[in-house]
Amino acid sequence: MSSLTIAVVVGSLRKDSFNLQVARAFVRLAPPDVRFQFCRIDDLPLFSQDTEGQPTAAVTRLKDEIKAADGVLFVTPEYNRSVPGVLKNAIDCASRPYGQGVWQNKPAGVMGVSPGGLGTALAQQHLRNVLSFFNMPTLGSPEVFLQWKEGLVTASGEIGPASKAYLQGYMDALLAWIRQHAAAAR
Amino acid sequence: MSSLTIAVVVGSLRKDSFNLQVARAFVRLAPPDVRFQFCRIDDLPLFSQDTEGQPTAAVTRLKDEIKAADGVLFVTPEYNRSVPGVLKNAIDCASRPYGQGVWQNKPAGVMGVSPGGLGTALAQQHLRNVLSFFNMPTLGSPEVFLQWKEGLVTASGEIGPASKAYLQGYMDALLAWIRQHAAAAR
Repeated sequence: MSSLTIAVVVGSLRKDSFNLQVARAFVRLAPPDVRFQFCRIDDLPLFSQDTEGQPTAAVTRLKDEIKAADGVLFVTPEYNRSVPGVLKNAIDCASRPYGQGVWQNKPAGVMGVSPGGLGTALAQQHLRNVLSFFNMPTLGSPEVFLQWKEGLVTASGEIGPASKAYLQGYMDALLAWIRQHAAAAR
Repeated sequence: MSSLTIAVVVGSLRKDSFNLQVARAFVRLAPPDVRFQFCRIDDLPLFSQDTEGQPTAAVTRLKDEIKAADGVLFVTPEYNRSVPGVLKNAIDCASRPYGQGVWQNKPAGVMGVSPGGLGTALAQQHLRNVLSFFNMPTLGSPEVFLQWKEGLVTASGEIGPASKAYLQGYMDALLAWIRQHAAAAR
């Protein structure tokens, strides 16, 4: 099978973000021919239609990274029972101008971790509504609603033993899903 | 009846935003003892938990404006079938740090205008989910799903004749709602 490139968009800007830690550990579960491009979203402007025709370098970079990817993995916290504004802003920035968005048809996965038991389920559902608008085929299940606990990510940055088999199953399903749908996104 | 102060948060940063135009015209339907505070959200930082303890002047200003208000009116476009990232970011910024958010219990109204027939209905529904988390009593109906058309706002900045009676009814209902619930938010 040919190699894959997957863009990873983490919805938190916190340096020690649980979602970033999980994302970094999760990608280690992939075979070596899969490349993960972690996308910066902290330096994007707040979206305004007035300036969408003159994108900043950060907007162009994000759009180029998504364009170059076979699929997108969103790893998101939940803020106030929805998608973080920073993540939605990144999605908005890369969706414009009209007809020049980059999300269309890209296969996707959604996961998240929170200190609480909901595991970002409500944020993920709002995010799925948005991805649907872009016709992004989004892996429906397995679902990944993680609760942050000591040992979810080990000191050496691996997924801990309690969640490793489940997340390996998710990785395998995600890669198969992206391989299945990537051709249509090109 | 005592005077009211209502914070108005418009979810678009576009200078000639349809939602801003409608918001400005809509507030003219209120009696003179109601004060509307239009809140800037374009100069807020992208929210990060790392810096929430050192809020920028813009974050403090928004929080102070919401704190001082008897209620909040959200006037929002719909971006990609959800709340604009810029609006959600403003909500996130003013919701933190934990225990120091300003939205709690403030009575609210939600309206929006779009070029299409949905009139931002899906964005408004996501927004209602978020407001619910803050226990913000939010006027359920009349609903205001406006389609932008020539004459919705007149050249002199008034709500046009085709929508004036409906929006006057909404204004009356909103003011009654905020008066009813404002005491509990203090």
